[in-house]
Amino acid sequence: MIQALRIGIAGLGTVGSAVLRLFDEKAKTLALRCGRPLKIVAVSAKNLKRKRGIAINSYKWYDDPLKLASSEEIDVFVELMGGEQGIAYLSVERALKTGHHVVTANKALLAHQGIALAKLAESKGLLLNFEAAVAGGIPIIKLLRESFSSNRISRVYSILNGTCNYILTRMRDQGLSFEQCLKEAQNLGYAEADPTLDIEGNDTAHKLALLTSLAFGTVIMLDDIYIKGIRNISLEDIRAADELGYRIKLLGVTIKSDTGIEQRVQPTMVPTSSMIAQVNGVTNAIAIESDLIGKLFLSGAGAGGNPTASAILSDITDIAIFSQITAQNIPVFGRPTNILKPYKKSAISPNSTGYFIRCSVDDCTDLFSFIAQELAKNHISLKTIIQKSLSDNKSKPKQTILLITHQTSEFAIYKAFNTLMQNGTIVNKPQIIRIESPV
Amino acid sequence: MIQALRIGIAGLGTVGSAVLRLFDEKAKTLALRCGRPLKIVAVSAKNLKRKRGIAINSYKWYDDPLKLASSEEIDVFVELMGGEQGIAYLSVERALKTGHHVVTANKALLAHQGIALAKLAESKGLLLNFEAAVAGGIPIIKLLRESFSSNRISRVYSILNGTCNYILTRMRDQGLSFEQCLKEAQNLGYAEADPTLDIEGNDTAHKLALLTSLAFGTVIMLDDIYIKGIRNISLEDIRAADELGYRIKLLGVTIKSDTGIEQRVQPTMVPTSSMIAQVNGVTNAIAIESDLIGKLFLSGAGAGGNPTASAILSDITDIAIFSQITAQNIPVFGRPTNILKPYKKSAISPNSTGYFIRCSVDDCTDLFSFIAQELAKNHISLKTIIQKSLSDNKSKPKQTILLITHQTSEFAIYKAFNTLMQNGTIVNKPQIIRIESPV
Repeated sequence: MIQALRIGIAGLGTVGSAVLRLFDEKAKTLALRCGRPLKIVAVSAKNLKRKRGIAINSYKWYDDPLKLASSEEIDVFVELMGGEQGIAYLSVERALKTGHHVVTANKALLAHQGIALAKLAESKGLLLNFEAAVAGGIPIIKLLRESFSSNRISRVYSILNGTCNYILTRMRDQGLSFEQCLKEAQNLGYAEADPTLDIEGNDTAHKLALLTSLAFGTVIMLDDIYIKGIRNISLEDIRAADELGYRIKLLGVTIKSDTGIEQRVQPTMVPTSSMIAQVNGVTNAIAIESDLIGKLFLSGAGAGGNPTASAILSDITDIAIFSQITAQNIPVFGRPTNILKPYKKSAISPNSTGYFIRCSVDDCTDLFSFIAQELAKNHISLKTIIQKSLSDNKSKPKQTILLITHQTSEFAIYKAFNTLMQNGTIVNKPQIIRIESPV
Repeated sequence: MIQALRIGIAGLGTVGSAVLRLFDEKAKTLALRCGRPLKIVAVSAKNLKRKRGIAINSYKWYDDPLKLASSEEIDVFVELMGGEQGIAYLSVERALKTGHHVVTANKALLAHQGIALAKLAESKGLLLNFEAAVAGGIPIIKLLRESFSSNRISRVYSILNGTCNYILTRMRDQGLSFEQCLKEAQNLGYAEADPTLDIEGNDTAHKLALLTSLAFGTVIMLDDIYIKGIRNISLEDIRAADELGYRIKLLGVTIKSDTGIEQRVQPTMVPTSSMIAQVNGVTNAIAIESDLIGKLFLSGAGAGGNPTASAILSDITDIAIFSQITAQNIPVFGRPTNILKPYKKSAISPNSTGYFIRCSVDDCTDLFSFIAQELAKNHISLKTIIQKSLSDNKSKPKQTILLITHQTSEFAIYKAFNTLMQNGTIVNKPQIIRIESPV
């Protein structure tokens, strides 16, 4: 039999511990499937003594992940420490320089340093696999890298952050506030103590940046992503969306057109009848449009110990098989780095499906005509208008106006509503949410 | 640069022609992606002169696919002729014996001869890829073979026949009869002149048999699939389903339990809110349940020239990369054939989500109590009862009764309704449709 593939793991949090546990359970199956034994030989983590519910004394212990990364006892270095810089970066770099294949679940690291690390892997003839970095249990990296080789992809719509999708789902289903749902997500272990990366959209952006590179064959360009989180989505928005036949989702969208690439992460209204609208709770989803396959839709577990560990194990299995290849490699981002195209940014395109706007006006009948005039001036036409009285203050009655526009640009919308705010027609800052019609 | 991968294609129908056309368009991209040129060198088809909208005179022509299969000028033999026996089988066998990798879209061939051919490929260290054989543009073969390596899969629900799904969708959306929709599907080129394989469920069964082997690591067992087509689904059933909050789909289901494997293809009612209920027209879908990933759902184009050609191109690309491997191979059915488990059949399990029954009775008030008694005798309890008068014949009024049961077995249902038919309580053969609750 071929020599065992020797694995070192750095980082033993939820995911690292799950990988250890599953290796114990599944080592035999995995060996049979890839015709070669797989063996975890060494581990590294911050704290040797921490309770993990799993014995680690059969593995060689390293206090310093850099030493593990450069150890001659391993063939594959599995980086599960996280963080976009520092020790995660240094140890992955060290492992590749030493000649080890790498598996990582670290989207922040790859979104920032992915191409540099891919170049390094390539120059050494090594594999750098990261299935677990995007959408956990959905094997989207393999699909984009291998199954779409002949396709020209035009768009990717995605729900990539389980915490945000959980919060938006609970707000709608239970009528709870954003803050209540966030607390719930934290109690359930979905959201970190500091949930900023999740709810401000940065975690989605990291993942989207990787999908963009794989989908369009370009270098990674995290800085060009327009990012807006879900913090200012109110229960009122969710209810209005419901009433109008939409759901609000934090979508990561990347689109390639003749003018370049458009990447954005923002709360988006999608028709209730669309598949992506049915994606609830911590589930993730990805919809891809391409010239040959047409539309492909995937949904599944985006995070959690087991789904993420499953992705890591499939990366390791691939290495066990593919590392026999000497003449030829699987390019990290689907193409060799020297043919990755430069990234050409496109302006945010006019939206063919319009915008939702919620704003408040004083209870004065002619105010609506002011709004209509201002919108007409900016060539914005309306599809739906709903006016509602708010009875919370009878001495100074207010009305909420819900609007859905036809196709227009974000620029025109903001221009019109800035004017309406400045001249006092509308009372508060309006809520403006883009509408999309994905699969 | 590495030597070009030389390809021979047998069969130039819709799919074969699409592969030729796309190769012309995409050869450069594909070569860059896999670091190696790909070249179609020879083709074979029944009729050299047939109009295909594409020039074939730059390829060497073979009248006999067997000669192409054994030609020393090719590295990969692509079988697109179809048919479970005969020339398709003989030429794939010949190609493998000669030492050529094989790509095929032929589900019937593999459902019957898959394991024998896999053994042959294995013994020669060759790849036998068949992404295009199941669900066209959905890369389900690669996912099951490579991404789920560590997962224990428990169930697969699927919509694998576009023609049937198109017919059921049109019946519901347009209120047309089965026959009208079938004619439409034939006019649009979805269904063959002889649509038997599609509408009787055999095409779905061929594909399901392959998924079962990949999902559960067993040999293929086509003969153990319970198969029921959609021919006897009436507009009345579709409307009743709608009213009760369900859609009718031709589902291919495979389930592994402690007692064995259960495979069935039958019209099934699924809740309107489930993802699989939203799969309309010729679209295919697959929902997988496993221990680690949980639930994964995929939907996309199941047939057509471009999606199928895309799958074939990804199989060829994989060969261009993986054929460098000498010591080790990707097993055709996910595991080497010598560790594929024997197939253990399970009885059709009691259904936790019940059955839909539509039957007709004469307009006599006490008849329903007879039905209720007979059902109770067989331990079948009811969730929903709807009684409707039919006014088409006033002299002899009839009533339709729609029932939804709680959990029970198919056996109990048929026993009760056989008795009710024999004693004349119900007038015609009842329509009995299983209900499932997939993703």
